[in-house]
Order: sequence, then structure tokens, then C-alpha cells
Amino acid sequence: MATDLSSASTEVTAKAKPAGANDTKASRREVKVPKGTRDFDPLQMAIREKVFGIVTGVFKRHGGVALDTPVFELKETLMGKYGEDSKLIYDLADQGGELSSLRYDLTVPFARYLATKKLTSMRRYHIAKVYRRDNPARGRYREFYQCDFDIAGQYESMVPDFEILKVLAEILDKLNIGDYEVKLNHRRLLDGMLELCGVPAEKFRTICSAIDKLDKLAWEDVRKEMVLDKGLTEDVADKIGSLVKMRGKPMELLDELMKEDSPFCGNAASQQALAELKQLFTFMDVGKCINRFVFDLSLARGLDYYTGVIFEAVFTGTVKMGSIAAGGRYDDLVGMFSGVQVPSVGMSLGIERVFAIMEGQAGQLTVRKTQTQVLVLGIGKSLWNVAIGIASELWELEIATEFRCVAPGKIKKQLSDASEKDGIPWVVLVGQDELNQGIVKLRDMAAKQEEEVRRDNLAADLQSRICACAALKGLTI
Amino acid sequence: MATDLSSASTEVTAKAKPAGANDTKASRREVKVPKGTRDFDPLQMAIREKVFGIVTGVFKRHGGVALDTPVFELKETLMGKYGEDSKLIYDLADQGGELSSLRYDLTVPFARYLATKKLTSMRRYHIAKVYRRDNPARGRYREFYQCDFDIAGQYESMVPDFEILKVLAEILDKLNIGDYEVKLNHRRLLDGMLELCGVPAEKFRTICSAIDKLDKLAWEDVRKEMVLDKGLTEDVADKIGSLVKMRGKPMELLDELMKEDSPFCGNAASQQALAELKQLFTFMDVGKCINRFVFDLSLARGLDYYTGVIFEAVFTGTVKMGSIAAGGRYDDLVGMFSGVQVPSVGMSLGIERVFAIMEGQAGQLTVRKTQTQVLVLGIGKSLWNVAIGIASELWELEIATEFRCVAPGKIKKQLSDASEKDGIPWVVLVGQDELNQGIVKLRDMAAKQEEEVRRDNLAADLQSRICACAALKGLTI
Repeated sequence: MATDLSSASTEVTAKAKPAGANDTKASRREVKVPKGTRDFDPLQMAIREKVFGIVTGVFKRHGGVALDTPVFELKETLMGKYGEDSKLIYDLADQGGELSSLRYDLTVPFARYLATKKLTSMRRYHIAKVYRRDNPARGRYREFYQCDFDIAGQYESMVPDFEILKVLAEILDKLNIGDYEVKLNHRRLLDGMLELCGVPAEKFRTICSAIDKLDKLAWEDVRKEMVLDKGLTEDVADKIGSLVKMRGKPMELLDELMKEDSPFCGNAASQQALAELKQLFTFMDVGKCINRFVFDLSLARGLDYYTGVIFEAVFTGTVKMGSIAAGGRYDDLVGMFSGVQVPSVGMSLGIERVFAIMEGQAGQLTVRKTQTQVLVLGIGKSLWNVAIGIASELWELEIATEFRCVAPGKIKKQLSDASEKDGIPWVVLVGQDELNQGIVKLRDMAAKQEEEVRRDNLAADLQSRICACAALKGLTI
Repeated sequence: MATDLSSASTEVTAKAKPAGANDTKASRREVKVPKGTRDFDPLQMAIREKVFGIVTGVFKRHGGVALDTPVFELKETLMGKYGEDSKLIYDLADQGGELSSLRYDLTVPFARYLATKKLTSMRRYHIAKVYRRDNPARGRYREFYQCDFDIAGQYESMVPDFEILKVLAEILDKLNIGDYEVKLNHRRLLDGMLELCGVPAEKFRTICSAIDKLDKLAWEDVRKEMVLDKGLTEDVADKIGSLVKMRGKPMELLDELMKEDSPFCGNAASQQALAELKQLFTFMDVGKCINRFVFDLSLARGLDYYTGVIFEAVFTGTVKMGSIAAGGRYDDLVGMFSGVQVPSVGMSLGIERVFAIMEGQAGQLTVRKTQTQVLVLGIGKSLWNVAIGIASELWELEIATEFRCVAPGKIKKQLSDASEKDGIPWVVLVGQDELNQGIVKLRDMAAKQEEEVRRDNLAADLQSRICACAALKGLTI
């Protein structure tokens, strides 16, 4: 789903702001990444891995299979899919041969994949970076992750739509980073509404784009755009204004809109959309996720390719930030490539904002950058070979091990680094005097205790200690 | 490390050849990926995940921390690093603002990262795609994975070099896809050799490029290039020819080259390199990996930035293919960005060739595309809600579940798909008659047996069955 998920501009993102933001102060000799991009350092990578683990877990538990596509597509593949946002597409230079562009989202490559392989059904997930030439000054990244889950194929009405929404709610629950709500609407209900208000059919998409700005602009500004820029009469704009204000609990608002005195009564497109929503809300009620959703007639979504249910998730708790996930049904996109219609529905999670929140909480987390269990210290040059021999025995047993060769005076520094910076639980101290007796010292870093262990039994000994420790902690090595 | 790791052109890669190879036959309306790129379908993704799991496991057990960098870098960051191969760099179009290029390898971005963050030591791994505008007609991918592990910082001589080689040997052993050997040489030994043979210093790098072609070209062709294109006398070329033929077990050849009657005797650069190699080979002997290595004076490596030990791994068994991994020491690269020298050594594994071999073996593997444990079938439209309710209970317990709503006549097809295509172990059949008695049917797909289970106890019942099953198999859900 193409959506505004690239931003991570909240109060918690000070650390993570894009390179280039300090350009004016930066010295000329500074070595930088391109504007709007960033490196992920080891602590951020540990958080990223954790988040992806949660997300992938939910995707897999819903029968999702993984897919990956090239980072760039033929330019013609991306053309005509993103409406006004197409100007943000990154092109590769013409170095002879085909014209290509970096992917703008993961939905169009998925549809292109189905068309390429002539597939008519698939339940796939894809976690990868996408690229948009947006304005880094507004806190937007130009390279950012999306986590997509889509169900393509012929199914009973609203069954896959329900499952996509269930997947989204499960992920946001499990990420456990704040209260959220998912706004939900239906493209054909929106079309029916515009028809009822007297908007000509050829202006539906551009008026949708205007309505879509209601989460950032006041109604007065949107009304101005409709009247001055897009040529609606004031009367028509005001009719739209009265309807897009409607929002509420899904079943309650739906019942109201289905009443005989509802403005939607008698409009065929709207009636079909309302009947579909009734089925969907029933499934969501049974699936115990409907309390996360708000039926909101102002939700429009800017993209051209949506054809049915549309939705967008936002945080509502102490952390205020824009859209964190979005998606909808797009029944005609695959057919734009292959001529064969493959009805599809999907969601896209903009994980940068989740990272931003988690990085803000990282002080409270105990995230280790390495998994190292044992540090072997060879004390003095003559003992390097012994330290390497011990480390090699431990690697053979698949025990995460580092070794250092240090001068006798530097042991203290190594021990404090191992304990404070790296959180390594065990240190083996290899000294000549002990070795002459066939032993080494083993230090338990948490207990701050040392004991002597036979050199020839060291690897087996450490293995059983580490296993016992892991068992105690429930296998979280 | 920049190296020729993009190719996967062996006898096992027929399935995986790049898009575009069939261009002449393809119809005009075909929807394609750009030339030299490819999609990874779910089966390939399952293999990829398995391979990355093995590789990451070894990296982490050696204290590696993860790093990720943007897929494109400022063009100036990549300039002057890749010698003659710079022509293969992909540029982004100039759409206003900075000029950027897709990364060509992971080594230069790592060095740039250290310079950007002013770090002087790091032990990092990075698994990501890199981009080269190579010729797809030669079976080369233009987008392919590299798995890099590098150790930057001041250490005792040859200690990190040993560990990089140990990591490489561990990975190739654990991948278990065929016999291999790692060719090893030293850039300063090579320089000493060229000096001894009478090559002028300004021609060292270009003569190295010629020597580097010896794994693909006969000596006669390389000699011709040296004499005709690069202006060496025949006498000098022949001296080089006699030396680059030398190869053998590391310690044995080293002892020979260190003898008093060796041609390298008295050449200072060579003597220092030989002393370093002696220390390295001692560590490798203690670390029990030296038997994987061959000391080979013809190994030159094309890139500009190597300054010490260099190496390259090739398969030697029934699977014959080119370089699968390569790397070396590059002490000056970080300083090219920051002015601060940060000695570094690293390896890069070209995983596409590993994928190609594993995909060739995939027939023998039992790789499931999904992890689905339970399929819930609601039989008839009136039971959809019940099926969705059951599935939601199972998701709540983190049991991987799919559900389908099917007409009574289509159960057989669903069961055979579940068993043969998807390998799902359990199917719940929800029918109205059973449900009236408070039960559903549970089918054990392996045993081909059905039993009746109480609806209100179903989720707990399935959970204990799946746990018992997982315990039996040693937790491989």
C-alpha cells in the first residue's frame, strides 16, 4: 500500500533524524549518507530484529509465505499507479538499456509478480525498503521499511478483507507501543456519496485526494481546495462537508446509514458497499477485533488503485503520530499488468514510526548488541595460541565466543568492558602459572566469582553451564 | 569485498537464470523484472532464510553485531575505490539535489560508516543486496546478496585476520554443499615479487589486475596482456610466470619461500609479508582450519584497496563454480574518508551461488512454504462465523491457522490440497450436525484419522497436541 508511512517525526525521534538535517552546521569534510537516508547501528538493528520477529510471526501464523522482488522495477511498471505522488518516484540513470525506478511501495511489485508468474491467488508477506523522493526537511525518510501482507484470489465476499484487518489488529496489539485506532471506509460508499452530492464522475478521484487531506488540514482549507482549485460549487462542497463528518462505532454508524431516512438510501453503489460492510463487521465482531475500528466517512486514501474497503491506523494514546499502517482492496491492479483480474486486499505497516517509539524506550530495554557468551583472555604473547585453541573448541560447540590477547596490565580494563559494555556472562583467564598445572580461571561475571577449571575439560564444562543457564531463563540465550 | 560473486552460472542454475535471458522468444506483452534481476518466490525464500540463518549464526558466535546502511550512497563515496570495475556502478538519475549511486559492495559503505560515526573499532556483519551493471548474458545477476563480516580496529598482528578466515571456513563447513578450498596470498608479497621481477612500481596495480585473470585465462593470454597491453618486457613477464605457478600447503610453501636460496630472500616487503603469514598460519593451525587453505602466489584480487592478506574460496568437488567468497585486509580505506587510519580485514560471501546449489538440491529437501498447523473448514455459508471464531481462538494461542469457508461438495479438494500442497498437519471440519451436539471433527492428516472433539475445548486440545508433536520432533515446528 502506498501511504504516508515514511515519517517518524515525533517527540521521540530526535536521535534518529535523517542525515542532512544539520547541513548548515556540518563541516564540508563530513562523510555523509544521502539526504533522507540513515544507517542502522547495532542497537537499532537489535530493535529492528525484534520488531520484524513480531510482525513476521503474525504473518506466518496467518499462512503467509515470503516473497522478495528486485529493489528496482521497469519504469513502465510503476507509471500510472500512484496519482499525484508519482513525482516522488526515484529513477535510475539512463546508462543504456532499460529505464528503471526504485520501488515506491510493495503492492505494485506484488501485483506485477502475480502477473509475471500468471498466478491468480497468493497470500504473501514482504518486508523491505521502499523509496520516495520526499522532503527530508519535514522529517520524512526517503528510504524506509514497509511490512506488507496481502491476500490475492477469489474468495467469499469480505473473508480476506476480515483477515487482513485481523492481522493488522494482532500486530498492533503485539507491538504493544500505545493505544491506536483503525479508521475504515469503503471506496464505493465514498463514490456513492460524491454522486449523491452532485460531484461529476470524472472528478471523483481528485475530490477523494482533497478529502484525504482532512487528517492534516481543517475542513475550511479542504473546502477551499474543492471550490477554488477543483471547481465544485459551494453547495456541493457543503453537502460533502456534512457527510464526511460522520464517524462512529462500525455497527452503530452502519445501522444509521442503512435506515430509510439515511442520505445514502436509494443510491445503488452505496447500498452495495453498506451490505459488504455489514458482512465485514459481523466477521470482525466474531473475530474479536471490531473494538479497534472506527467507521469514518472522511477516510479517502489518495491512491488510484483502491476499489473497496480502505483503512488507516493511527496512534491515539500518549504517543501522537500520523498513520502507522494502511491498506485496502484493489481488485483491478493485477489486471492492469496481465489483463486478468485478480481481486486482492492488503495492508502495509510503516515500521519506521514503530522503530522511533521503541528507540525512545530503548533506555528501559535491556538489548544486548552481541550474543557473546564467553570471552577468552590470553595473558601475554606466549599464550595467544592457547586462547585461540580454547576459542576454537568453543566455536566447535556453537558457543558464541570472543578472544583477546592482552598484556598482563590490561586485564582489568578488559573485564570491566566485558561486564559493562558487552554484558558477557563468562570470562576465561589463561595465565602461564595456572596452565602449568593444567588449569585456567573461569570468571562468572554476574556473581563476580572466579574458580579454577581443568583446561582439558573447559569446553564441556562451559557448555553445561551455559545450557543450565539458558534452561533457567527459558531458552533466551 | 568487491569480487566476482554475482554469478550463479553452473549446471544447477537452469531454474534460476536471470530474467531477460529469453528476451528474443518472449512476447511483447510479458510483464518483466529488469534485466539481471529476479524475484525470490516462497520456496526460494525458505531456502534463503535457512542459508542466512546458518551464516548469521556463525557471525554472531564470533561477536559480530549487525549494521545496515542505505542502498544508495553519495556518488563521491564510491568513486576511486573499485579500479577498472567502477564502470559497473549503477547511478541514480539526477532529479535535483545530490548525485547518488547504488552500493557496489558492503565494504565501502562499512568504511564510510566508520568514518561518518568517527569509530575506530567494530566487528560487524551485514547481509544485503549489492548492485553491478554486469552482463546478464554471462549469467550474472545485477542485483545479488553479499554476506560480509569485517573486523576493524587495532589488534595484535594477524589476530583478526585469523578470525576472519576461521569464520569463512566455519560457514563453508556448515553450509555443507561441497568440497572447497580457500586460496590465500599477501598483497605485499605480491608487490615484493613484482619488484624482484623488475616491474616498475607504478605498474604494480595494473599487473595485479592481469595476474588476477589467471583463474579464467591461460598463462599465455595473461603474458600477452602483460607484454602487449601493459608494456612489460618478455623477460620480466617470464620471471613473473615462473613465480605465480607456486602453490601448496601453507606451511610447506612458506618454509620453502623463507629458505636462504628463495628468490624472495633479501626483499624487504616480501620478508615482512612472509613473517606475517608465518604467524597467521600458526594461528590457523591451532584453530584447526589450515587444511582448508592453499597458499597460492597467483592470487592477486583486482581491487585497489587491499593492503595485506587476500583470499578467495572456490568449490572443488562435484559442483564446479567460480569464487564463492573472498576478502582481505584493507588498512587504508577508512582513512580515505576520514583521514584517520583504521586497520580492517573482512570477508564477503557471495550467497547466490549457494542458493543455486541448494535450489538444485531442493527436490530432496522437505521445505514447507508456510508454517500453518491447522486448517479450519466451515462447511456451508451458515458456518463461516463459527470457522472464524475458532480460527481467532487459535491465533490468540499463537497457533498458525488458516480458515476456509467451503461448500459441502468441495471438502475433498480442500483436504487433498492441505495434505499434498501445503503439508498442514491438522484440519478442523465444522459441520452443522456435529455442531448441534457441541462437537467438531478433527482430522490428523498424517494418520488420516478423524475424531470428534468438543467445540468449547478445541483450542486447548489442539494446543496440547501441537506442543506434544513439537516436543517429539525436538521443537522444529
